Parts: sequence; structure tokens; C-alpha cells
Amino acid sequence: MFRKVLVANRGEVAVRIIRACKELGIKTVAIYSEADVRSLHVKKADEAYLITGDPIRAYLDYVRIVDLAKQVGADAIHPGYGFLAENADFARYCRRRGITFIGPTPEQIEMFGDKVKAKKVMKEVGLPTIPGTEEPVRTLEDAKHAVKEIGFPVMLKAAYGGGGRGMRVIRNEEELEKNFESAFREAETFFGKGDLFIEKYVENPKHIEVQILGDKYGNIIHLGERDCSIQRRHQKLIEIAPSPKLPQDLRMKILGNAVRAMTRVGYENAGTLEFLVDLKTGEYYFIEMNTRLQVEHTITEAITGVDIVEAMIRIAAGEPLPYLQSDITFRGYAIEFRINAEDPKKNFAPAPGKITSYYSPGGPGVRIDASVYKDYIIPPYYDSMIAKMTVWALTWEKAVARARRALDEFVVRGVPTNIPLYREIVRDPDFLKGDFGTRFLEEKIAKGEYDFEIEGEKPMEDVVLAISAAIAAHYGL
Amino acid sequence: MFRKVLVANRGEVAVRIIRACKELGIKTVAIYSEADVRSLHVKKADEAYLITGDPIRAYLDYVRIVDLAKQVGADAIHPGYGFLAENADFARYCRRRGITFIGPTPEQIEMFGDKVKAKKVMKEVGLPTIPGTEEPVRTLEDAKHAVKEIGFPVMLKAAYGGGGRGMRVIRNEEELEKNFESAFREAETFFGKGDLFIEKYVENPKHIEVQILGDKYGNIIHLGERDCSIQRRHQKLIEIAPSPKLPQDLRMKILGNAVRAMTRVGYENAGTLEFLVDLKTGEYYFIEMNTRLQVEHTITEAITGVDIVEAMIRIAAGEPLPYLQSDITFRGYAIEFRINAEDPKKNFAPAPGKITSYYSPGGPGVRIDASVYKDYIIPPYYDSMIAKMTVWALTWEKAVARARRALDEFVVRGVPTNIPLYREIVRDPDFLKGDFGTRFLEEKIAKGEYDFEIEGEKPMEDVVLAISAAIAAHYGL
Repeated sequence: MFRKVLVANRGEVAVRIIRACKELGIKTVAIYSEADVRSLHVKKADEAYLITGDPIRAYLDYVRIVDLAKQVGADAIHPGYGFLAENADFARYCRRRGITFIGPTPEQIEMFGDKVKAKKVMKEVGLPTIPGTEEPVRTLEDAKHAVKEIGFPVMLKAAYGGGGRGMRVIRNEEELEKNFESAFREAETFFGKGDLFIEKYVENPKHIEVQILGDKYGNIIHLGERDCSIQRRHQKLIEIAPSPKLPQDLRMKILGNAVRAMTRVGYENAGTLEFLVDLKTGEYYFIEMNTRLQVEHTITEAITGVDIVEAMIRIAAGEPLPYLQSDITFRGYAIEFRINAEDPKKNFAPAPGKITSYYSPGGPGVRIDASVYKDYIIPPYYDSMIAKMTVWALTWEKAVARARRALDEFVVRGVPTNIPLYREIVRDPDFLKGDFGTRFLEEKIAKGEYDFEIEGEKPMEDVVLAISAAIAAHYGL
Repeated sequence: MFRKVLVANRGEVAVRIIRACKELGIKTVAIYSEADVRSLHVKKADEAYLITGDPIRAYLDYVRIVDLAKQVGADAIHPGYGFLAENADFARYCRRRGITFIGPTPEQIEMFGDKVKAKKVMKEVGLPTIPGTEEPVRTLEDAKHAVKEIGFPVMLKAAYGGGGRGMRVIRNEEELEKNFESAFREAETFFGKGDLFIEKYVENPKHIEVQILGDKYGNIIHLGERDCSIQRRHQKLIEIAPSPKLPQDLRMKILGNAVRAMTRVGYENAGTLEFLVDLKTGEYYFIEMNTRLQVEHTITEAITGVDIVEAMIRIAAGEPLPYLQSDITFRGYAIEFRINAEDPKKNFAPAPGKITSYYSPGGPGVRIDASVYKDYIIPPYYDSMIAKMTVWALTWEKAVARARRALDEFVVRGVPTNIPLYREIVRDPDFLKGDFGTRFLEEKIAKGEYDFEIEGEKPMEDVVLAISAAIAAHYGL
């Protein structure tokens, strides 16, 4: 086992990794930017080193980071998520310098990082991918021919561009005839070539992902699925395990196929396969693979009891998986809420600043992963997520009730957060039903169904201040 | 279901009950003494009412409390633990006034409150009790006769007194002959009568207790056992579920017999049967029944997933148990630490005062139940427990590692606590082995094995203050 691990990250995920190391008896080394001197991860590590200069580059400059690891005698680096987590060059550089990168091999990171290649490989090993043309389409005739294979609805997409230009959702032949030319011309105008791809359009799908663990000896297991459909602009906000509405036969197909595919590629360490699932047809499509620890790993930990970060470290150290698939049992439902310092009333703009009051909920079935505290100043340079709240209960209904209770307890003042939005969502009967797709939240917001004003408890501070004032007055202070 | 519940308690248990009510959609009413205006339970309830006068009587004056419940429209009262929790007169008074007492019937509270009667009844319904004389013994001849039935070692106890006077542990016939007269004379001197009871002496037993839930329709289930052997002067400090060293066949005997006994008495609501278990002989003895929620219920919640406070409320409202025994599954190990404001270096004297710094641990497998915060002043009138930390993990070894990590994170300053003692215990190889009995802690302390000085992390405050000072200096503030 490693003696010392350097954590090449910041904030809550750095704290999470430090906790796992401490439970394994491994010494920890934190790095921090000048903007992060007050971050909790600096405090919680056994050693912490300032990386001067640009506050973002501090966590990206892997030559300096690996130099530091060598200097302080660390034998492994955990990259967390974001920053260097999916940087194959970094993983390769670690290998060259004789430091263990806690994650998959550089080759696997690279392969899955190329989204087109990843889709091709996953198709080869038996995972369904979204049906579509493999070659660009230039004429209406070719388009009609392609659609015969794919079936409506389809999406037209510019072959050489992105950002929504040239994109059209097409539901029938008439719409295809009407829209093909304009999509082609739009693509031509913006990207120089009018060439289009045509792929199956999945209406309001569920975003379902599968947590995988694999060791260096070919053993692969899954830890169940997560439902990450509650998103805003492809940004996950609330994640649920297991998915409250996934039919059991479909679940077993997806999980089984994910394990089979990962076995065939010999995947090592923790990873997540993301799928779009069409509940109406029962079809599911691989979209991408994340070759790292994910923010929402906490809900999988809650239902399986497995410590995923510990497992990553043990696998990287060469231990075989301590579990067979049959050892993994699933219990209850977990929901994670990403608490972001952002203003739902100002189109969710990030809102860095000073936290003047902070109280995080406790009691049964509540887990908090945070790196902030009262008087902490959120720097403007990073992601706006300041804490994660994970609730767990035996049933889905109780988990939602617990979320309601815990969100009401949560107090963050000084900066706006998305907690008021979450208080609305967990009171929405449509959320309780569980059959939401990826468009759920944007449709609700567009319709103005949420007003972001639901108040939790009044912060204790108000009461204390009032009482203190009264006492002071009483004693003539 | 109830619309409004009055919580006749304070501190963490009041907060615990309020949380359960909120998850059930029930309004809550707190009461508080003048000493408790700043307690969190006051803040967390929907309504809170001051009970003026003596700070302890505030939570005992049940006529005033029931009057208040009637006035504010509460339809039930939860007594928590301590104070009125095992007061049969209070439960009876609630019934008379048409308020539901959340707990067993007054008759059951009364019967189990009489320890001699409880033992007799439990023996009748098939539970082993500690063998001993039922009538006082006056002569050495009678004593020898009695011991023939009971078997060595035995304990001599004054029949009409307590406090250790007249008590002798006797291991063989020679010791009996040598000590009978002196014990008799000591009892005579102190209590007027020399009469002695003789009962089986259990050497360093394990304290094992069984959590029971029963509804109004005769359904009784157990939620497994708890090992509460880590005690100091009969005060539980650390509790574990399940017991790490109880043989499975003995566990099943105790659990099965406990359920059978409770079924025969028709027990209603939550209750706990306490046993002394002699691991050397495999014998177990019922000692008493607690007819209330217990402090350490959190570890049972951690391994079963059942919300015990919710179950109590549902049962009191007349719902049948929602679980069969076969629905209850057990997973992993949980350990609870009672964080007390007391000074281990001053013979564990209670240490009320102001908490100047407070940081409670988080992350995977950590549950905090607390009613304190930074700047909270612990009043001198009540129990010294200020928080409970419950850790959970899939294995016993991992649970202990997690406890080590979380105890190191815990920061309470301003008042001494027993956290440094716990940091020692969780590093003691004898604790990790799990085969400790009720004398474990006192023997360790007597031998001076713990020095109560193991430091956790340095509080963030120090760092923040240093940095703030540096920044202030930099900007010439």
C-alpha cells in the first residue's frame, strides 16, 4: 500500500480523498493556489504546499505537481475530478516519473477521451450507440435513405461544427423535406461545408450511468446505476441511485452489458458509462465513458456501502477487487444535491463571495461533503459547487421526505445558492413520481413553475443575535 | 397520522424527534427552559414555548406540559429519553387528557420500572435472569446450600441496602467461609439487618441489548443487538452494532428469546431489553428493560436503515408495523460515540461553558446528532452530552478506521470533552479485537493506559486567524 498520496485537486473532492487516505493509514499531501489558502483541504492534509501563480494553472501544471510529489516522497497521485483527472498526458507523465496515477491507464483515458473513437469501440464490444449515419450526408435523397434505416424522429447535425448551428429535430418525412435544405445551407454558411450527420433523436431521455470498478487482474463489477436526469444545460444538479423509474429488466440489461463491455476492454480502476435511455421504447444508447471518480459517487456509496475512493486507491496499489459481484447488495435510495453558489434568479450566474452564515444539516441519512464554513470566502476562479448533500432512506418516498427536511435545515448566507430551487423541486409531485427526463428541469423553469423563494428555517444567528441583544440590554451592557 | 407533536425534551434528542416529525409532515412544538433559549431544538421546531422557573423542572412538570399541548393543539407528545420518558404517571395523565403518549402503555412502563417485578415477569415468559436466592440468607449453612444451586463465583449483597456495603465477590467455598460473617456484620452495621442475597457473579460480561419494535396488533420484531460494554461507572460511552464478538448462535438465541418474551407480554412501541452475556460460558441474563427510545438507537438505524423514531410515531398513531422480521436486513458495523463536555483529566467532571470553536466531521459513513454550535454556552443543569457521532462501514475494521479519521476531524474548543479519550480507545489493539467486557474501560483507565492527549487536527480557526492577521497586516488594516 502507498505510504503517501498527493491530492492534485481542491475543495470538497480533495477533502474526500484525504478522508479515504486517512482511513487507510496513508499520509496525505495537499496542493493549493494562492486563492485557496483558506480551503479546508489545506487544513485536512498532513502536508500542504502552495503552488504560486495563476489560481487555475496551479492545479493543472503537472510537471510542477509531479516534481513536488517526488520531492515530498509521495508514491501516488489522486487527481479527483476535473483539472487533471482525464488528462492522458499527465497519467503517462506520472508513469514515466515512477509515481502511481490513481485511475485507469493512460491508454484508456486517451481512448475514451476521443468521443467518436469511444463510441466505435463500445459498439464493437456490444453496447448500443445512438443509430446514425457514419458518413456525412449531402442530398435529400441520401437523407431519406438514411432515415429509412434510423426511423423518426431524427436529429440533423452539422458534420463539421457544433453549437446548435444546422441542428434540426425532424419528426416525419414532410419535416425532412421542408428542413433539409435550410439545415444544409446553415451548416455551409457557418462551417464552410453543408455536410450533415443524421442520428436518432431521443425525446426527453433519462440520463442513466453505471459505476464500474475493475482491478488489474481482469475482474470487473458494477455498483448499480445512477439517474442523473435532473440537469440544467447539461450540468447535473440532482442525482439519484437507483433510478426510481427504470424497469428492472432494462436495468439488468444495461448493467450486464456495461460489465461485459468493460471486461472486453480490460478497464482498470473506477469509471462510469453514461447512457441515454428512452423509457417509452426501452432502448438505451451509450454516449460516453468518464474515466475518473465522479461528483455523484456518494449516492452509489450510500446504497452499496462501498467506499469508492478507497477502492480506487487499493486497485491502483495492485490489490485485487475485494468483492465479487454477488457480494454487492443494494439498499434503499440516495439523492445527491449539488449546492452551488449561484443565483437562480439571475439565470444561475456564479456568485462568489463571503459565506456569512453556514449550518449544514445532520441526523439520520444525511451526508455532507463540503469544504466551506462560516466566514469562508468563495474564490471566483473555480466551479461554483461549495457542498454536496447526500440523503438516503429505505424507500424513494422517504428519501424525498428526508431531502425536504434536510434542505430546509441547510443555511448558507452571504452568497445566493440553488438551495431554494431544490426546496421547490423536492416538493414537486412530478419529481416524486420519478419519471423525469433530461428536459424536466429546463421545461419546469421555462414554464415558471418554480419561484426559488421557499424559505428554510430562519438561521440560528438571528435568534442568537436577538437574544444576545436582549441579554445585553437587560444587564445594561 | 398526528397533525402536531409536542416534544417534551431538549438538546439533541429533541432535534432528532423534530427531524422525524418533519419527514412525516407533522408540525412540531418545542418546550424550553430559561437556560435553553439558545438550544437548537428551540430553533428547529415550528413553535417553541418557554417554561419558566427551575431549569430542570421545566422538562418534568407534566401538568404544565400537557396543558400547553392542549392549548396549542398538539395531539401527541414524544418524551425522548430521560426526564418524563419512563414516567408511568405522565403516560397515564396524557391518556386521561386525550393526548397520545408516544411510547408503550402506562402499565408496561410501570411494570418494567419495578426492576424486581420485571425480572420475575421476564423469567416467567422464558428469559434467563441472573440466578440467585429469592429470600434473604442469614447463616453460613444457608449460604453454602444456596451456592450449591448457583455455582461459584457468586456475589454477596446486602438485602436491605446498596452502595457496595456488604458486597463481596466469592470465588470458592474457602472464601465463602472467610467472608460471610464480615459481610453479614457490615450489612447489619449499615442497614440494621445483616440479611444477604446471593447471586451469580458474571466476570467482565458483555452488555448486550436488543432493540424491539411492537405495534398495537401483537406484531413484534427485533432490529438486532447493540454491544454497550464500553462503559464507565455504568455510564455507556461507546456503543456498537452488531457486537463484533458475539457468536452467531448465541446472538440468534438472545434475539429470538427477546422477541418471544415481548410477544408474550404484548409489548407496544420501541423498547430495549438489556442482557449481561458471559462469553466464556455462553450464558446470558436479562437485567432490565428500557421502555423508551435510547441514546444509542442511531447505530441500529445505521445497520438496518429503519428510522426508529418514525416507527415509534407511526405505531403510536395506530399504524401496524410496516416490516416483517424477514424484511429487516443487517449491513455493516456502526459505532456511536457520546461526546460529553467533561474533563477526562479531572475524573470526568462535567465541564459546562462556552464552545469557542466547533467543527463536526462529515463525508462517508458519518452521522452527527448535535444541538450545539460555535459560541453556544452549555448550561450546567443538564447531562453533559453535547453531541453523538455515529460512524458506519461495511466491516468492523473499516468502521474503527473511519472512527479514527472522524474523531481526528472533530473540533470542540472552549470546554474539555472526552474526544481525546475516544482517540485513544480507537487506537487500542484490544478495542479492535472486539472482545471487551463492561470492565474494559475502567481497567484500562486504572492501569493508566490512556493519556487523553492524542491531538486531532488543529482547528481551522487558528489557520484562519493567522491568515486574516497576515492579510490585515498586508493591507494595513
